[in-house]
Amino acid sequence: MGGDHGPSVTVPAAIAFVNAEPEAALLLVGREEVIAAELARHKAQNHPRLSIVNATEVVAMDDPLEVAMRKKKDSSMRVAISLVKDGQAAACVSAGNTGALMAVSRYLLKTLPGVDRPAICTILPNQKGGPTYMLDLGANVDCEPQHLHQFALSGSALVAAVEEKPRPTVGLLNVGEEDIKGNDVVKQTAVLLRADHEKGLLNFHGNVEGNDIYQGTTDIVVCDGFVGNVVLKASEGLGRFVKNALTAEFKSSPLNMLGAFIARGAIRSFSRRMNPSQYNGASLLGLRGLVFKSHGGENAYGFECAIRRAFEAARHDVLARISTTIGQWMPQQDNDTGAASRPDQKTTA
Amino acid sequence: MGGDHGPSVTVPAAIAFVNAEPEAALLLVGREEVIAAELARHKAQNHPRLSIVNATEVVAMDDPLEVAMRKKKDSSMRVAISLVKDGQAAACVSAGNTGALMAVSRYLLKTLPGVDRPAICTILPNQKGGPTYMLDLGANVDCEPQHLHQFALSGSALVAAVEEKPRPTVGLLNVGEEDIKGNDVVKQTAVLLRADHEKGLLNFHGNVEGNDIYQGTTDIVVCDGFVGNVVLKASEGLGRFVKNALTAEFKSSPLNMLGAFIARGAIRSFSRRMNPSQYNGASLLGLRGLVFKSHGGENAYGFECAIRRAFEAARHDVLARISTTIGQWMPQQDNDTGAASRPDQKTTA
Repeated sequence: MGGDHGPSVTVPAAIAFVNAEPEAALLLVGREEVIAAELARHKAQNHPRLSIVNATEVVAMDDPLEVAMRKKKDSSMRVAISLVKDGQAAACVSAGNTGALMAVSRYLLKTLPGVDRPAICTILPNQKGGPTYMLDLGANVDCEPQHLHQFALSGSALVAAVEEKPRPTVGLLNVGEEDIKGNDVVKQTAVLLRADHEKGLLNFHGNVEGNDIYQGTTDIVVCDGFVGNVVLKASEGLGRFVKNALTAEFKSSPLNMLGAFIARGAIRSFSRRMNPSQYNGASLLGLRGLVFKSHGGENAYGFECAIRRAFEAARHDVLARISTTIGQWMPQQDNDTGAASRPDQKTTA
Repeated sequence: MGGDHGPSVTVPAAIAFVNAEPEAALLLVGREEVIAAELARHKAQNHPRLSIVNATEVVAMDDPLEVAMRKKKDSSMRVAISLVKDGQAAACVSAGNTGALMAVSRYLLKTLPGVDRPAICTILPNQKGGPTYMLDLGANVDCEPQHLHQFALSGSALVAAVEEKPRPTVGLLNVGEEDIKGNDVVKQTAVLLRADHEKGLLNFHGNVEGNDIYQGTTDIVVCDGFVGNVVLKASEGLGRFVKNALTAEFKSSPLNMLGAFIARGAIRSFSRRMNPSQYNGASLLGLRGLVFKSHGGENAYGFECAIRRAFEAARHDVLARISTTIGQWMPQQDNDTGAASRPDQKTTA
C-alpha cells in the first residue's frame, strides 16, 4: 500500500517479478479489494504464486511512529512484518515511511544478538562495474564507534553472502585517508576495525573519502546515518541535475537532436546504466528478519528491483549468515534474551 | 609553488588572468628563478602587472602543520599570506596543502572578531543556473551549534557582497526538512538560526536535504566540515563516473561516434557546464584577510578561476562587509584583542 503510488506501482511490480522468477511466491499485503482490483486490471487475479493477505489499515507518511507501532495494528506494514516474524514470509518489502518501517520492524522482530541498532544499507554503482554497499543511510543520525563497528560487521556478512565474496573490503568514510584525519568517533571506530582486521575477522581497508564510493575502492563503505543520508540524497540531486542538463543540450538545436537520434543507442545504454531504479531496495540490516525498503517515489521497475533484492537475500540465507557471523565476531551483549534460535526459524520459512 | 603541478600551472593561469582583467596586478610568490623561467617561457617576463616576490622554501603536501607554521618561515605560502597581512596584497590564492594554508592563515592573520573558527566555502552549480554556496568543507570536522551559526552568518555576508543579494537564503543541511529531524547539533543550530531569522539578521529557510544543494533551494548550505567534505568529494567522484560512462558509450560503436560528432556542440556545451574547474577556488572564510584555496590537481583554467574568485572578493570589499556584518550580528567575544581596525586596513590594500 506504501509509497507515492501504492498498489498501482507495487502490484504490477509484483506480477512482473513472479513472472520473471519461477521460484518466487509473493504475499500482497493490504486492502484486499484494492489489490484484487489491481490484479484483475492486469489479468493476474488467478496467478498461482500471488496471494492477497488482507490488512485494513495503512500507515500514512505523516503518521507518528507511535501510531505505526501501537495504534494501527492491522496496517499493511505491520501485518507484512508479522508474516516475516511468524515465518510465513522470508522477507518483507515496503515503499512506506522509512522511520515507521524501521520502528515497527524493531518492535516486532527485535535486533540480532550483538546488534544495538539496525542500519539501512543500499548499493550504489561504481567505476569498477560492481556495487558499493553503503551503510548507514539514515537510521542512526548519532553514532558511537561501536555502532559503526556493528555496521561494518553486518555489512561484511551481507556482502559475503549476497556477492559470494568471502572477504569483502570495508572502508571507513572520512575526510582523508590518513589515520590522523577525521572526528573522534571515526578515529575510535578505525581502532576497532583495525583490531578486527588483525584478528582476521574483517577485511578493513582503512579510511576512504567521498570519491571512493563511486570509484569502488572498497566493497563496503561505513558511515553514520547523517552523513550517509546526505551523501545519498546529494548524489540523487546531482544525478538529476546532470540528466536534465544533458537532455536540454541535446534538445537545443536540430543538429544536436539529429546527433542524439543517431547515437540513441549510446544514450539509451547510458541512461540505463545511470538509472537509479536498478539500485532501489535498501536492506534494514541487523534485525531478526529480512526487511527491505523501496524508495517511495519509485516506478514499477524500481519496486521490482527492491523485490529482487529481498528475494536474493532470502535465497542466499543472508539472515542466518549475518546472525552466525555476528555471533562469532561480536562481543555478545544480550544472549540472555533467548534470541539465539530466532534467526534459524526465520530462514527455514 | 603549490598544487600537483606548481608554476607550470599557476604561472600560465596568472598570465591569462591579468591579460583578461586590466585592473588586476599579481604578485607571484615563490622561487624566483623557477617563476622567472616560467614567465619567460610564456614571453611574459616583462608584463607590467606581474611581479615576482621571492620565497626560498615550499610547504610540501606532507609537511606537518608545525613545520608550515613555524619552521619554514620563508615558504611561498607564508610569504604570500604575510603580504595580505601587511596590506601589500588584497588576497592570497594557493593550490597548496589545505591544512597548512588554513593553519598558517589563522596563525598570521587571526580570525575576525566573533569568529571562533574559519570555514572553507565553495560554490557548486545548481539547477536554477546560479551557484549554491556551501560551507564548511573540511576545516572543522567537529562542530558545535555556535560554529555552524557563525558559518551561516559569514556565508550570508559573503553572498550578500559577491552576489549582490541583500538577503541570501540559508539552508541547514539535515536528513529531513522537519524540525524533529537530525542530530542534536543540527537541532540546536536551527534554534539559533531561527532566532536570527526572527530578528531579521538572517534569511533562514530551514532544513535542507542533500538534493537541495544541486536543486538550488537556498543560496547557502551550512554543514559541518566532515559532512561537507564527504559530500563534495562524493560529488566529484560521481561526476567523474558519469563522465567516463558517457564517453565510453559514445565510443562504443561507429554509429554512436557519428552521432556524438554531429551533436558535438551539445556535448561540448554540456562538458563546459559540468566542468568542475569553473567552480574552483574555495574561500577561507572568517579570517582577517582574503585567502583562497585552489584544488591541488587543477589545470591552468581552474587555477585562473580561483584567482578570479579572489579578485572578485577583493573588488566587492568582501572582507570589510563580512567584518561589519559579523560585528553587528554576532554576540561579540573578543573585542579586546584590538582587532576592530584590521579589516579596514586590509581592504584599502
